[in-house]
Amino acid sequence: MKKLINSPESVVADALRGMAAAHPELAVLPEDGIVTRAEGPAAGTVALLSGGGSGHEPLHAGFVGRGMLAGAVAGPVFTSPVPDVIARATVAVDRGAGVLHIVKNYTGDVLNFTMAAEDAEDEGVAVARVLVDDDVAVAADAPGPGRRGTGATLFVEKIAGARAEEGAPLAEVAAVARKVVERSRSYGVALSSCTTPAKGSPNFELGEDEIELGIGIHGEPGRERRTLMTAADTARTLLDAVLDDLPEYAGDPVILLVNGLGGTPPAELYVMRAEAQRVLDERGVRVARSLVGNYVTSLDMAGCTFTLCRADEELLRLWDAPVDTPALRWGL
Amino acid sequence: MKKLINSPESVVADALRGMAAAHPELAVLPEDGIVTRAEGPAAGTVALLSGGGSGHEPLHAGFVGRGMLAGAVAGPVFTSPVPDVIARATVAVDRGAGVLHIVKNYTGDVLNFTMAAEDAEDEGVAVARVLVDDDVAVAADAPGPGRRGTGATLFVEKIAGARAEEGAPLAEVAAVARKVVERSRSYGVALSSCTTPAKGSPNFELGEDEIELGIGIHGEPGRERRTLMTAADTARTLLDAVLDDLPEYAGDPVILLVNGLGGTPPAELYVMRAEAQRVLDERGVRVARSLVGNYVTSLDMAGCTFTLCRADEELLRLWDAPVDTPALRWGL
Repeated sequence: MKKLINSPESVVADALRGMAAAHPELAVLPEDGIVTRAEGPAAGTVALLSGGGSGHEPLHAGFVGRGMLAGAVAGPVFTSPVPDVIARATVAVDRGAGVLHIVKNYTGDVLNFTMAAEDAEDEGVAVARVLVDDDVAVAADAPGPGRRGTGATLFVEKIAGARAEEGAPLAEVAAVARKVVERSRSYGVALSSCTTPAKGSPNFELGEDEIELGIGIHGEPGRERRTLMTAADTARTLLDAVLDDLPEYAGDPVILLVNGLGGTPPAELYVMRAEAQRVLDERGVRVARSLVGNYVTSLDMAGCTFTLCRADEELLRLWDAPVDTPALRWGL
Repeated sequence: MKKLINSPESVVADALRGMAAAHPELAVLPEDGIVTRAEGPAAGTVALLSGGGSGHEPLHAGFVGRGMLAGAVAGPVFTSPVPDVIARATVAVDRGAGVLHIVKNYTGDVLNFTMAAEDAEDEGVAVARVLVDDDVAVAADAPGPGRRGTGATLFVEKIAGARAEEGAPLAEVAAVARKVVERSRSYGVALSSCTTPAKGSPNFELGEDEIELGIGIHGEPGRERRTLMTAADTARTLLDAVLDDLPEYAGDPVILLVNGLGGTPPAELYVMRAEAQRVLDERGVRVARSLVGNYVTSLDMAGCTFTLCRADEELLRLWDAPVDTPALRWGL
């Protein structure tokens, strides 16, 4: 394993020390894995808190800032943060109007955020929760914990963050967050596995001409192994899966995320953006907004995911609202 | 070779089609490799043009926009664009106050930008040029073409772009660009080679525990091969080389770039940012501004480069000026 790290044990805290050095507008507790805004949201507004296992950077700490998260909690690599830390962060970010927990749908995260919410409520903080479960690699009716949360998490954090910034009460911020989840779907492809620092070798092996469709962001096996395809065919395959699952699609404009998994360079992501446009044009789907880059990664995995959100006027207005975070910034 | 592309022949045009789709504020000619602002700089202001071989994205097209470049010319992967295209772009971006060519110091780029400047001047466009040669991997007094241009290119484009936006005449914009070059140095490390689409296999091979110091951004061999080190030792090694070469350093604040080469995920870059801070603190060097991310890449190479610019009040003022490009955006 070759990585620019000091040790598998210290990688999360070290990366957070780097965030602290690079972004003085953040308040960072590297050993606890807590990142908040140095200057919190306005008093009386809802605070958004997200988090989960590390290894998906810039998610979540890179999205802490004006117009998006009030705080993020970073667990060990691919491992949920413990309830106590989530609870402490929840109490810390509350500005008197309650806290929205944005939780990717993984068993550990759901459990730990649930316990943390109870603890925070015991301390007088109102907590609402939205579960993000956008990954169509898992069938909607499959037995088990349900669909995984992936790229749509960014959409939820951006759009609900804008609504909180407008001063909406907790129930309304939670409602728009759930609306984003209902309208968003993702699907991804890996060209290589990721290598966790602790394990030191790839989580799964792919042959020289093999790709894996429907991978998760924790090195889980995918839904299907295929022979390497052109970018055009890959984009079509991903978008077919997403569009077939997008509920009540009836010509609405979409927000598109072309997301790199960590090891894929910008040029390839832009090639995929071009092919996404071609497919969506053929299908009569209008891309109203889009993002291209490494936003929800899986360590050093090569590959990408597509996320579509079926937008409306409200969602586009909130998407366009100013945001100022390390990883997302516009309209200031 | 596994890449998200359609073919080695089409990769540059395909990626530019993706940029066009993602960024409607750009005017893109994918087949010609020309990217300009849909709405050019104000009439009577200096226009900045840069370019070179592709494979370094987001450099240069990702830096086209308000406060930075007026245009960028993208050649084939790792191959300079031809003079005719550079000349056409030069004439196209001129707003009556002349054009600054920002050229990384590689033989092909220097030759082709020189010929293009002559052609554009024949058409009545005033052209000035700044050569960027910040890579200390090549000794300053080595025979040959001189030092290579790498990370400092971003600094030059940002700072000279801000000066142009202020309405400064061509000679002054060129002067501040040269000041940035004089005060900037870079050094990098690779954990893997890059693989060009045309060749399809890595440019050089590194063993399981080997790294290469002093690599260039075109898969050139480095200056020294070493055994894998901790992030702390790697950061110290890179910064020693940069600081030893930074001319007339006397306690000035610096601008620091921790740059990913394409295949290294954000978390590792932030670990390197933390270690850079530790080393610079020890050396008494104050980091006034910093950037962490994939800005000047080498296809899918794993590794990173550090660039330092010895700043002063003028350079920090211009650094902080608003910028609105696909890859760099703040202060709007």
